[in-house]
Amino acid sequence: MDEKRIFFEVAYDGTDFAGWQIQPDKMSVQQRIEDRLSELYVNQPIRIHSSGRTDSGVHAMAQAVTFNPPDYPQIPPANLQIALNHSLPDSIIIRTAKFADAPDFHARYSAVGKAYTYVINRGEALPFNLRKSWHLPDCTDICEIRKAADIVTGTHDFSSFTTSRKKIDNAVRKIYRVEIDQAEDLLYLTFVGSGFLYKMVRSLVGAMVMVGSGKLKAEEIADLIKAKDRSKAPRSAPPNGLFLMKVFYDKASLEKWKYTDKPIE
Amino acid sequence: MDEKRIFFEVAYDGTDFAGWQIQPDKMSVQQRIEDRLSELYVNQPIRIHSSGRTDSGVHAMAQAVTFNPPDYPQIPPANLQIALNHSLPDSIIIRTAKFADAPDFHARYSAVGKAYTYVINRGEALPFNLRKSWHLPDCTDICEIRKAADIVTGTHDFSSFTTSRKKIDNAVRKIYRVEIDQAEDLLYLTFVGSGFLYKMVRSLVGAMVMVGSGKLKAEEIADLIKAKDRSKAPRSAPPNGLFLMKVFYDKASLEKWKYTDKPIE
Repeated sequence: MDEKRIFFEVAYDGTDFAGWQIQPDKMSVQQRIEDRLSELYVNQPIRIHSSGRTDSGVHAMAQAVTFNPPDYPQIPPANLQIALNHSLPDSIIIRTAKFADAPDFHARYSAVGKAYTYVINRGEALPFNLRKSWHLPDCTDICEIRKAADIVTGTHDFSSFTTSRKKIDNAVRKIYRVEIDQAEDLLYLTFVGSGFLYKMVRSLVGAMVMVGSGKLKAEEIADLIKAKDRSKAPRSAPPNGLFLMKVFYDKASLEKWKYTDKPIE
Repeated sequence: MDEKRIFFEVAYDGTDFAGWQIQPDKMSVQQRIEDRLSELYVNQPIRIHSSGRTDSGVHAMAQAVTFNPPDYPQIPPANLQIALNHSLPDSIIIRTAKFADAPDFHARYSAVGKAYTYVINRGEALPFNLRKSWHLPDCTDICEIRKAADIVTGTHDFSSFTTSRKKIDNAVRKIYRVEIDQAEDLLYLTFVGSGFLYKMVRSLVGAMVMVGSGKLKAEEIADLIKAKDRSKAPRSAPPNGLFLMKVFYDKASLEKWKYTDKPIE
């Protein structure tokens, strides 16, 4: 165990932030955490690394973060967690804090997979769910959504389901499973995969809800994948329904993972 | 049916507002709605009336509102609702809009009772529940809380459970029932009463959670009521766990009401 590098799992409500990543003149989650860490380490600059950025408005139940603390002062991870949670806004909470398992362990490069959940509300829009879900009363055909989920599961070239402007060398990703859960008016689409292209989950959800509301056939998702052409796919789902649920660092935990805390209910 | 006065039920997330009531230099829910109404009525000033103010940070599932629209332009309530929900921030939603039942119907003066729910979280604090509940992992003794609920139910002088600075002529109020519900880590305390003094629900919850965490005996609540002395009662619960659930305009609906939508789950 490396007594130096520190690992966090961080939950955040993305509503008030311009995404995870530091940007000039905008408040990001990364900036908030780095500022507070810097204060705790007597104004030494601290740079933290996440498993990946999340867009403006996207939430996290457990974003993974690593960083190297300075030599002095030495602050045990548990104390760091308490101090940070005391000074961070309510919209950011450090859920786990510990020393990294290995000296070269890195939140991004050591990851073997991720899980995302997208929440759709088919009931009444209320202030308490509006910024944590996509309000789509028409998205009712769960049976067809399950068919679409089966089609996207597996190893595919997901070029049709990303909006990256730069050319991607390799758009092949593996989706291990897609879980569809219902609880009253809410519908949860959970994707567990080896990794995801930029806006890939939101693009897939954008197509799957078209299937759920009868505007696209489940089988047409297969054609969209084959096309490898973003312009053929429906528009992406908005960011506010998306939650980064978990980052995995070994295959066993990826395979057995099942969310126990739904992001909203 | 009066074709003039209009009635709304409004849900709002109190997090971002300095309470219901208009205040100088602060953004209130009332101000937001009046500003939007004024725009829709071609910049004529509009004054709306609610069933009562809610404090900064307190939420509403159904705050009741009445107002007299100007003679021109005539806008049917349903259209007004659509236009307002389009232009209001996501934190305010008009859930019901109709003409008032009688010409003298008034959101405040016609009310015969109200229901409030207070949410307590005994599990993990997360950004998604922190501003919608009071985080109290120790509040576990539901049996004792039920005893305290039975004690506060009925007609009492609640002078010990208000923080109004001005002398109250009559602090007698009737609590018809107090319902205690649990759903996993969340505990819901729902109060249905004829009316409530300023900060009365939060003061009662402040005492009841002391009972739930073993720091006060349920029977001591009866002594606190008898004392008619605010200084003897425990501190009030914070505003962020409180939801105004419903305002009642006839006894029958008050008696049969049961919340179907929990404010958070």
